[in-house]
Amino acid sequence: MVEHRKPIPVTEAVERVINKAQALGIESVALHDSYGRILAEPIKASHDVPPFNRSPYDGFAIRSADSAGASGDTRVQFEVIDHIGAGAVSGKTVEKQQAVRIMTGAPLPAGTDAVVMFEQTVDSGETFTIRKPFEPLENVSLQGEDMKEGDAVIESGSFIHPGTIAVLATFGYAQVEVAKRPVVGILSTGTELLDVSEPLVPGKIRNSNGPMIAAQLARMGIGCKTYGMSADELDESFNIVKQASEETDVLITTGGVSVGDFDFLPAIYERLEAEVLFNKVAMRPGSVTTVAVANGKFLFGLSGNPSACFTGFELLVRPAILKMMGADKLYLPRTRAVLAEDFTKANPFTRFIRASYDGSSIRPAGFNMSNAVSSIARGNALIVLPGGTRGYQAGASVDVLLLGVEEGASEWTL
Amino acid sequence: MVEHRKPIPVTEAVERVINKAQALGIESVALHDSYGRILAEPIKASHDVPPFNRSPYDGFAIRSADSAGASGDTRVQFEVIDHIGAGAVSGKTVEKQQAVRIMTGAPLPAGTDAVVMFEQTVDSGETFTIRKPFEPLENVSLQGEDMKEGDAVIESGSFIHPGTIAVLATFGYAQVEVAKRPVVGILSTGTELLDVSEPLVPGKIRNSNGPMIAAQLARMGIGCKTYGMSADELDESFNIVKQASEETDVLITTGGVSVGDFDFLPAIYERLEAEVLFNKVAMRPGSVTTVAVANGKFLFGLSGNPSACFTGFELLVRPAILKMMGADKLYLPRTRAVLAEDFTKANPFTRFIRASYDGSSIRPAGFNMSNAVSSIARGNALIVLPGGTRGYQAGASVDVLLLGVEEGASEWTL
Repeated sequence: MVEHRKPIPVTEAVERVINKAQALGIESVALHDSYGRILAEPIKASHDVPPFNRSPYDGFAIRSADSAGASGDTRVQFEVIDHIGAGAVSGKTVEKQQAVRIMTGAPLPAGTDAVVMFEQTVDSGETFTIRKPFEPLENVSLQGEDMKEGDAVIESGSFIHPGTIAVLATFGYAQVEVAKRPVVGILSTGTELLDVSEPLVPGKIRNSNGPMIAAQLARMGIGCKTYGMSADELDESFNIVKQASEETDVLITTGGVSVGDFDFLPAIYERLEAEVLFNKVAMRPGSVTTVAVANGKFLFGLSGNPSACFTGFELLVRPAILKMMGADKLYLPRTRAVLAEDFTKANPFTRFIRASYDGSSIRPAGFNMSNAVSSIARGNALIVLPGGTRGYQAGASVDVLLLGVEEGASEWTL
Repeated sequence: MVEHRKPIPVTEAVERVINKAQALGIESVALHDSYGRILAEPIKASHDVPPFNRSPYDGFAIRSADSAGASGDTRVQFEVIDHIGAGAVSGKTVEKQQAVRIMTGAPLPAGTDAVVMFEQTVDSGETFTIRKPFEPLENVSLQGEDMKEGDAVIESGSFIHPGTIAVLATFGYAQVEVAKRPVVGILSTGTELLDVSEPLVPGKIRNSNGPMIAAQLARMGIGCKTYGMSADELDESFNIVKQASEETDVLITTGGVSVGDFDFLPAIYERLEAEVLFNKVAMRPGSVTTVAVANGKFLFGLSGNPSACFTGFELLVRPAILKMMGADKLYLPRTRAVLAEDFTKANPFTRFIRASYDGSSIRPAGFNMSNAVSSIARGNALIVLPGGTRGYQAGASVDVLLLGVEEGASEWTL
């Protein structure tokens, strides 16, 4: 007998998963280990940036009033009384017609309010002349022009990228509060599975989903516990799933979620008294993707078909993990692109097609069956075709989700 | 005296750097450590995928010829003689009007050439009937339909992403030949620099460029040796640069490359008898970016201004490192987007503006001076405005380079 499952829309599946994801807490890491983490505290400017009025050029700091009346015919002369580079502070106070030779980044000496660039002078060493008047604050980087003390600069929940780290360093964050990462386990189920190092034998294939998911986690900066492979035996699989779910925050299984005679995950969820959020999603590939929660732990039952497994991870597991880390951008970034070739299949469900995106057009990455491995290797994006459509021609504008981008989008817009 | 330098176009700067970058060699890593590396061997299919004709559904394998004449009025009956799941091989040969109950992923038993889905049967356990004839190979995943033995599947030089790993696992690559990563050093120069953990004092700022570059490397999967900070002292700086360049393949310095009184990198390049590829690029920010080669080692002299430093890394250091690893996609991916607000500054040189890209429009990330830190933190892309232009209005279509994308573009298209 075939069990009949009611498919829910992808958007609803994503919502149900997100609604169940709980924040995991906070830990402190060294700044130099913080790339790729999610910031768990808001960053305010602890001082003005720049912290003082400084010279953006190499030249001479002057009192602008002293330059009044300068012209090509009436050059005005200054006497150089000091010489400072970045990091130095002049001990002198500049008086009338005096100047300090100053390098980029150095603070304006007392009394000065403008900088004359070398190119604007005729320079004799001890003195120089200029041929135009300077406004107050001309050629000056003003204290606080980039950031003012107390400004909210970066929000909690932000992905820490290199620019974030520049700000954290500026404000003296040698340690940063970041979200804890979930402990994620991977268990590949299926009697047909061989380990990568085993020779091929009739009827079997090597386990590609386990290593692939580990890499999908790695590109999110997340490690994993690997529970290897289990044959399609109910008791054995139950015991492994039970143990693994106790040792992890998120357990990802592959295979065994359909309605076949040896698909034991539904029975395992029942034995665990798990709450099944859904067991059928109106999407291709991956319609049998099942998500359950047992004792507060996520159980993601991904399809054993490689591209269904891949897509299920990116659409459902990834945002759940990011939500658990308090991230403010949970979803794959979306854009629009021009379809580079016809795609004439019908789409009874929302269809996700592995594809190559070049910044303007997008081309399906070859053989697009849910059991295909080759197209996952070639694609860097997913084309999204809405359910209930068919017959997309080359030149059509389609929705695209981008893969392998460090920071996601804050809204699910499909 | 101001030294006059001749700026070269960005495109030429990139070319000169790429032309000097030399491949570093190959090493072997475990598959589970290979995410993010560059593949140093071409991958051919070592067997067909699927490796045998298999069932893509749960159902019954039959001889299609036996279904001839089946209709709603004339149901045709089959006897079930075996039952296999994925990973099992039936020992039986299917004869006339016989069938094997078969699960998704299992190989078709001898004699069979089609699969009847459960939904297409009336099933009594030992027998079932069907109401339509089946074609030879109907509902069969054909051996080799995804990949054929000997097919070139992935080229050497490819970035290893999760899909690549699925293919490598499929073909039994427990170890993978990948490009060696360069040893990269970072030295921040400038008397004004404080370490992140030091309190702010007058005239000084904390070193944000060093940690930022370390993170830019980290997002390429590359570690670094940190040579800390050196004051603007020629002999001291020379000694550190000399030692660091001997210990690394690539030494990145920040600051000291302009023509100020304490900018000692030009003198250091001279003492090292380095070949200076250029010391002025027609771009903003970062026009003073200097690249030199000494004893086969790269010396990247980035500007001390944070956003100039950031941009110099992404435009010049990143492709050089990728070329050293034999990657086939060296450049930041490019797209076009609609400018979300006016940008009316003149662009005497090619201008790179830190910006936020949302998949369709792009907005400058705030304060866009070369010494600004805040806009680096907010941006996920760079707007590129060609030199010799001014006055871009909101709504204009502009070139955009995407940051933080795992795989780049194969051509420099600006």
